[in-house]
Amino acid sequence: MLVAGLSGANGLDVSLSNFLGIKLLHVESKLFPDGESYIRFINFEDVRGNDVVLIQSLYPNQDKRYLELLLAIDAVKDLGCRTVTVVIPYMAYSRQDRAFLLGEAVSIRTLLKVMSNLGVDNLITIDIHKEESLKYFKGGVAANLDPIPLFAEVMRNLTKDPIVVAPDQGAMNRALKLSRMIGYGDYVLFRKSRDRITGEIKHELGEVEVAGREVIIVDDIISTGTTIANIARYLHEKHPSKIYAVCSHGLFVNNAISKLISSGVSEIFALNTVPLPKNVNIIDSTPLIADALRRLTK
Amino acid sequence: MLVAGLSGANGLDVSLSNFLGIKLLHVESKLFPDGESYIRFINFEDVRGNDVVLIQSLYPNQDKRYLELLLAIDAVKDLGCRTVTVVIPYMAYSRQDRAFLLGEAVSIRTLLKVMSNLGVDNLITIDIHKEESLKYFKGGVAANLDPIPLFAEVMRNLTKDPIVVAPDQGAMNRALKLSRMIGYGDYVLFRKSRDRITGEIKHELGEVEVAGREVIIVDDIISTGTTIANIARYLHEKHPSKIYAVCSHGLFVNNAISKLISSGVSEIFALNTVPLPKNVNIIDSTPLIADALRRLTK
Repeated sequence: MLVAGLSGANGLDVSLSNFLGIKLLHVESKLFPDGESYIRFINFEDVRGNDVVLIQSLYPNQDKRYLELLLAIDAVKDLGCRTVTVVIPYMAYSRQDRAFLLGEAVSIRTLLKVMSNLGVDNLITIDIHKEESLKYFKGGVAANLDPIPLFAEVMRNLTKDPIVVAPDQGAMNRALKLSRMIGYGDYVLFRKSRDRITGEIKHELGEVEVAGREVIIVDDIISTGTTIANIARYLHEKHPSKIYAVCSHGLFVNNAISKLISSGVSEIFALNTVPLPKNVNIIDSTPLIADALRRLTK
Repeated sequence: MLVAGLSGANGLDVSLSNFLGIKLLHVESKLFPDGESYIRFINFEDVRGNDVVLIQSLYPNQDKRYLELLLAIDAVKDLGCRTVTVVIPYMAYSRQDRAFLLGEAVSIRTLLKVMSNLGVDNLITIDIHKEESLKYFKGGVAANLDPIPLFAEVMRNLTKDPIVVAPDQGAMNRALKLSRMIGYGDYVLFRKSRDRITGEIKHELGEVEVAGREVIIVDDIISTGTTIANIARYLHEKHPSKIYAVCSHGLFVNNAISKLISSGVSEIFALNTVPLPKNVNIIDSTPLIADALRRLTK
């Protein structure tokens, strides 16, 4: 098995190569003056007959990262690799998983279909927005890795009897699981409703005493941070001892970080699936991916 | 037949709809805050059972334009169109048409293969860097439209007994054809060679008298403009009456325009296959594409 990191590998190629003790396939990646991507496999003679793992996260510059990945897949197939496994720590376009309005493109379907069509054998991703989306990948294994055990390990050491908050219905299982794995504490769903007559937006947290306790808000993706900031602001008024925001993929678009902090979030945690700003605590996803790759080769 | 212009249509959707008298399929195209593309076909109910023509040029932001095109192809197929024809006035990545060094990705192969795989029926492009590349498209018709008749029409009215210069061997047929279609004048190949002993670069133009005559340098793509600027500078010293630079695809990266003008180029012409700066004369490619679409439906 050989591991190759493309321009969005975010260091995971090197850490996986070290962790698993497998050889790196070196990739030269550059841009032409007009903006076209160029890639070349330096030790290309190692590819023939081998199992190649391509690592590419799809943020920032989702489209550039994705196209570079397509170029690499096609190239290693052409160089005669035995299998191609694509590791996409952060899968962009996963939130457009259906036509919410008729006539909309279902972006994640297109991205996964195109990779299957090119002959990708296995796909590994972390905490994709909706696991059902993986049905669009028609290759061999399509694995969605669960980061909750990693979150639980960190938060167990850091907190005592915390309340885990799910920002919406979609994050409910995530919050429940995290709460259980921490071993104690409550989990609650944050509900937002609009009064049909007055139009007033009402927030509800259910029957839980927040004052003096630690709160963990957990979600898959933080983009502009608006959702988490609104919840933090609501919670902050109930005087918790600390508010943690924990997510898999911290895109932190625009001024997301300062928005979170000014809303009462004390600390932010995210996986290294995308490049992170300095004031975010990094949870390394290397062991998670390594474990999945080990299972693949069994 | 329905015509839909994506974000890189550069107005050709509207001009083709008017020219051919066919209905526009309206596309809403936007970006999410994190940079993901979104598209929706507004009059999606028109798609079912119909022949859809998608227009998307691949510059600037090649990768974003290309991904949006993939989303659109997959969406109209899913909406039940009868056929999809893709019109790509400027085909990005066409210069990486083989592995110049072992281990390199052959980018144009990947781009065309991915579109065939998604079920694109026909592909129309203008003056692709190497026509042989179209073999990678496995759909129905793959047409490479020749803009030389459009160039000849413009230059015939503008010049008298011009010398047409091919900047390199690859542009030779283009220059020969343009010269013949203008009806008179010479065509010559500009040769660049490096002295094996002194390392000195030598330019040669063959046996042609430049002084007092009009010169037309013709090429497929002008990117940074360095090649054309070098030739113009060489020619300028031989006192031509005027130097024209004519190209299909004017990318004009960085300060290409001022580089060309300061090297002695008097006027620049390009097709509207990509957005053009104000000081470039536009040659409309609408009739060329319209003619190809008419032939398709016959």
